[in-house]
Amino acid sequence: MWLGLDLGGTNARAAVVDASARVVATARAQLQDRSPEAVADVLAQAARSALQQAGNPSVQGCGVAVAGQLEGDRGVVVVGPNLGWRDVPFAELMEARLGCSIRLVNDLRAAAWGEFHGGAGKGASDILVVFVGSGVGSAAISGGRLVTGAGNVAGEFGHIKVAGPEGRRCGCGERGCLEAYVGGHNLSAQLREAVAAGPTALAALCNGDVDALTPAHLEQAVALGDPAASAIFERAAELLSLAVANYVTVLNPARLILGGGVLSNVPALRARVEEGVARFSNANARKSVQVVDAALGDDAGLLGAALLGAGTPGR
Amino acid sequence: MWLGLDLGGTNARAAVVDASARVVATARAQLQDRSPEAVADVLAQAARSALQQAGNPSVQGCGVAVAGQLEGDRGVVVVGPNLGWRDVPFAELMEARLGCSIRLVNDLRAAAWGEFHGGAGKGASDILVVFVGSGVGSAAISGGRLVTGAGNVAGEFGHIKVAGPEGRRCGCGERGCLEAYVGGHNLSAQLREAVAAGPTALAALCNGDVDALTPAHLEQAVALGDPAASAIFERAAELLSLAVANYVTVLNPARLILGGGVLSNVPALRARVEEGVARFSNANARKSVQVVDAALGDDAGLLGAALLGAGTPGR
Repeated sequence: MWLGLDLGGTNARAAVVDASARVVATARAQLQDRSPEAVADVLAQAARSALQQAGNPSVQGCGVAVAGQLEGDRGVVVVGPNLGWRDVPFAELMEARLGCSIRLVNDLRAAAWGEFHGGAGKGASDILVVFVGSGVGSAAISGGRLVTGAGNVAGEFGHIKVAGPEGRRCGCGERGCLEAYVGGHNLSAQLREAVAAGPTALAALCNGDVDALTPAHLEQAVALGDPAASAIFERAAELLSLAVANYVTVLNPARLILGGGVLSNVPALRARVEEGVARFSNANARKSVQVVDAALGDDAGLLGAALLGAGTPGR
Repeated sequence: MWLGLDLGGTNARAAVVDASARVVATARAQLQDRSPEAVADVLAQAARSALQQAGNPSVQGCGVAVAGQLEGDRGVVVVGPNLGWRDVPFAELMEARLGCSIRLVNDLRAAAWGEFHGGAGKGASDILVVFVGSGVGSAAISGGRLVTGAGNVAGEFGHIKVAGPEGRRCGCGERGCLEAYVGGHNLSAQLREAVAAGPTALAALCNGDVDALTPAHLEQAVALGDPAASAIFERAAELLSLAVANYVTVLNPARLILGGGVLSNVPALRARVEEGVARFSNANARKSVQVVDAALGDDAGLLGAALLGAGTPGR
């Protein structure tokens, strides 16, 4: 049995995975205090609870999926934006609590690995995963191996530049990143700006409470023909679909796996991405690729983390 | 000893490579008739000539670098644009002539593999090679393995889209490809268009013979402050530098290897690409990457083809 853990910005989740890559038990706990020690306590508690449900099997390996920049070999979270962490030796903290060796893995790579082994990527060995949620990220599998990059930061798709120095400011501090236009937080910010700028159907859709605006309102306002919402949608759709299509051109995956809250809550945007791949990617690459939705939801990251923690060959 | 062959649009080249990945003999022959049988004859002749110089060693494997879309496993050139080939079972033709097993490899991947083993990529295991010559292409090595893609067409960097449906027409038949703006043939076409459109220093630089215009004239005219040339240069520099920077962001290579006639004949463009990587790629990816020039020239493809023909592990 292997243990897969997932550290989000608000939740800690755990899963016990068996030798057939099946999730046999899960548990979840809410993060309160975000200090590394407190987070490690909560995550260890979730792990113990999942293990207990599974009958306390012995654990051969444990992977922890974390959003952010990691030094996996040293077990350090270099930058964990959701938790405000810098240089946290988190593997060490978890090892002390769980007594087994811990491997930290990027959350999107964990999800890609999970989908590859047990979800929408099964049977393919060249896979591109693109998630558009509050952030925008990607992970690629080439010939059955994760593309990690020289500095372990490959796949930072949300931070490719799609606009010049006058572009929107991104959470990463730079300007013109794709995420600044299509990430969930930034879409919501654009909706608030639209309400502030003039009459738009968005104001009524959120009953005047602009802080309640989400990407789902964007879909509704576009369906109503609202010009302000349509302009935001159009720009996001153009930038995202072109960028994904070009990514498909250079990587030539067999499967493009789409996921994340924005794509599931704004189906019109999901449709434009699929259309963009068909229209803008290179003819040869287009022939190989099948566009599919992520199939395992939250379990993908847990499964992938467990398998990577177990040292699945090919990573 | 291994044999590396390279099939260009006008030349056939051959090299004998020893067990230390050193090129010990080379030969070259001009292609006349472009029929597959005739081309195979000329290439086999070059191979025999190189082997003779090396003292006719026994050959353990042979790789042939070919520009175009290949089905390597079947040994077929699906589309060979330089030779006007479609579905040519070229490995078979070469096997009949040389009596050893033949592996067809994409020319840019062969060059990348050669640079990786004996040139500008030595010591790195995550490498991105971008060549801007008459065409624009790329090859990536991730964790010491070539990224081939599901349909063996990964790396078609010249055919990412950088402009909409109104964009320039590319040799591939589509519109708005990067190659349509920065590839050598297309740069020359833009220079001819500039001369036709109005007064420009380009007319004097080519002594009125617009068919003699090459990308090197672009560099000269820009240095003279010519507005028409500067506009062409500026657009090419912006599109190329941004695209390369974004490629670096998603792949996070340790080494970005630049090559090809356009980049060597237009050093100002080469400089802009390096500057673009520093300015536009993601901060984390930027930290890992070293921008270098291809070191082996024409030998890279021969060496890489020989090593891939030899079945180097890791491809």
